[in-house]
Amino acid sequence: MNIDFTYENPTAIHFGKNSLDVLGDELKKYGDTVMLAYGKGAIKRNGLYDSVMKILQDGGKKVVELSGIMANPTYKKVVEGVELVRKNNVDLILAVGGGSVIDCAKAISVSAHCEEDYWKRYWIDFKPLANEVVPVASILTLAGTGSEMNAGSVITNEEQKLKMGRVFPANVNPKFSILNPEYTFTLPKYQMVSGIFDMMSHLMESYFSNEDDVTTDYLIEGLLRSIIHSARKAVQDPKDYEARSNLMWSSTLAMNPIMGLSKKQDWEVHMIEHQVGAYTDCAHGMGLAAVSLPYYRYIYSYGLDKFVRYAENVWNIDGTGKTKEEIALAGIDALEAFTKECGMVTSLKELGATEEMLPQIANSTVILDGGYKKMTAGEILDILKKAY
Amino acid sequence: MNIDFTYENPTAIHFGKNSLDVLGDELKKYGDTVMLAYGKGAIKRNGLYDSVMKILQDGGKKVVELSGIMANPTYKKVVEGVELVRKNNVDLILAVGGGSVIDCAKAISVSAHCEEDYWKRYWIDFKPLANEVVPVASILTLAGTGSEMNAGSVITNEEQKLKMGRVFPANVNPKFSILNPEYTFTLPKYQMVSGIFDMMSHLMESYFSNEDDVTTDYLIEGLLRSIIHSARKAVQDPKDYEARSNLMWSSTLAMNPIMGLSKKQDWEVHMIEHQVGAYTDCAHGMGLAAVSLPYYRYIYSYGLDKFVRYAENVWNIDGTGKTKEEIALAGIDALEAFTKECGMVTSLKELGATEEMLPQIANSTVILDGGYKKMTAGEILDILKKAY
Repeated sequence: MNIDFTYENPTAIHFGKNSLDVLGDELKKYGDTVMLAYGKGAIKRNGLYDSVMKILQDGGKKVVELSGIMANPTYKKVVEGVELVRKNNVDLILAVGGGSVIDCAKAISVSAHCEEDYWKRYWIDFKPLANEVVPVASILTLAGTGSEMNAGSVITNEEQKLKMGRVFPANVNPKFSILNPEYTFTLPKYQMVSGIFDMMSHLMESYFSNEDDVTTDYLIEGLLRSIIHSARKAVQDPKDYEARSNLMWSSTLAMNPIMGLSKKQDWEVHMIEHQVGAYTDCAHGMGLAAVSLPYYRYIYSYGLDKFVRYAENVWNIDGTGKTKEEIALAGIDALEAFTKECGMVTSLKELGATEEMLPQIANSTVILDGGYKKMTAGEILDILKKAY
Repeated sequence: MNIDFTYENPTAIHFGKNSLDVLGDELKKYGDTVMLAYGKGAIKRNGLYDSVMKILQDGGKKVVELSGIMANPTYKKVVEGVELVRKNNVDLILAVGGGSVIDCAKAISVSAHCEEDYWKRYWIDFKPLANEVVPVASILTLAGTGSEMNAGSVITNEEQKLKMGRVFPANVNPKFSILNPEYTFTLPKYQMVSGIFDMMSHLMESYFSNEDDVTTDYLIEGLLRSIIHSARKAVQDPKDYEARSNLMWSSTLAMNPIMGLSKKQDWEVHMIEHQVGAYTDCAHGMGLAAVSLPYYRYIYSYGLDKFVRYAENVWNIDGTGKTKEEIALAGIDALEAFTKECGMVTSLKELGATEEMLPQIANSTVILDGGYKKMTAGEILDILKKAY
């Protein structure tokens, strides 16, 4: 743990089949006006909307609704929410949904009291948070992004064709999050496995960076093994509570500062995928899966020992009689076989990309410097072509 | 993650070589009167006392001192602290030391505003916290107990010959903790390896319980591997910053609710050791090491599959051609070999116990029911004899 850090995570997690029972008591801590933020209506079909609304009404809350939050939440949607918060003096934003809904809620939270152009200040210029926030809480229905216990918010500006993410201080974390694995049972398999790759990718972005010896890397290996184990069971039976609950908690931890402490971290796969998403609106995890395989085959030799460790400790590759190169590649092959086993989509073409888009995606990708090899736009284009 | 849980951990961790730099800013959040709680003077010899005192004075704080907190903090010491807090209207208790000092600070924190017999209420009757607490913060100088990021407090009542521990709600957690691995460099090796076994034991107490499939168990395996790896390096070179920093962070996580989520947990080894400690005042980790080996050799067959998993995933035992029984025992043998390699003391006799004490220890041990086998006082006596 050579790199100094500060870690603070004040979100209270209520986890399990009966976790909604705490909502009434939690709501008492906040003012009367609650903005209920949700997606495109899945929670109306599965009854969660009615359950939550009843608890809000029993608590005497005035409810303002922000519905229709999309898979890649847009700046336009944030503006809509900000106006609602300002007009109604909202005391708490209750996000019911997946990471997109929670990310959108956090964006509204930091923007509502911002007196300048908040898109520019927070997502383009990455300036520090300098205003009050509206408290956010969440009820999670989709495992993947970890937004329920962090201060990250990824927003897409459709006009500018930019999908930009940033991490705010811990006071932007949801105050509490309710995680009932059963809420994820009705999710289509496509979304479930997309979320599974997303959580794995968060861990791999952190893992594949520095070569020094960090406790965090051992935790990541353990968590990846747990995800792989439970994913295989969940793909067989999406109603396996044990598997789905493990995946839900793993995803919360995977995109949590705790799995990145004292690490440099890469995140280039996410940068590339964000622009794939800005052009295709594909499922985030599927875009990550498509980009990861050619990306890791391209960079592994720059971090060879770590890729050997990954192969052996995460995928149980037996290295006997193999060169480091062979072991490392066997690890990436195991990752690829796993994506196929789970039915993940790893072709950008299938995800809606066209050949013409690829140079535009490559040229608009943010290039970071935390991984084993700093990319050029040309190298990113090569990777995109292999992922196509 | 079949068992529902609530997880909340509001402690802010400042970790690293420069972490003391934040103390001045943190102190601004609290009132003027700070009680500085510490042990038997090690922090005066290594200069930390002077550094902290200067920051307190620069911040204009009125300082009340509680010194001489012993390795197993006593109820009597808690009473002394409570009286100081009441008399001086202390706004913050700043614990500088290891887990004993922080545990004592937390005990004072919950007791100062308690209007009844707090020893009886909180450590004997285990009644819920029902009064305000005095904020606690810590500067850690010894890795092992994890007290810097949890709400536990273990106190010894010398007159009653009882060492009792309990976990309070998260508002008893230190508000912030400063963890600089260099502060552990001057610790005698005996204390260092005692702390190492303590952190391992915390993880094993959680690990060796239910047989279902829980993400937490994968995290524990990862963390145990990290501890074993870094302990070997630290025993060779106690000034290896990377190893000591890994151990410090591992110990914080090991005795943290996050490593016990959705687990039943055992903790019988700790119950036995607490009474060993009450009778001998031995170093906590050494007492745990002495008890653990015969305890696990006694219970492994009741949780055979888990002990096999432990052997393979934590100690890399190659199970080829071996029975489950042989693999499980090879895992415990590996643990024993590790204790010898680190120079841990595993004989109760060497830790100051006498044969006459053993029945008294056995008969006063709290018997829990979270592990693979519920003990009887007779079985505990057998284990103590083997540990003797």
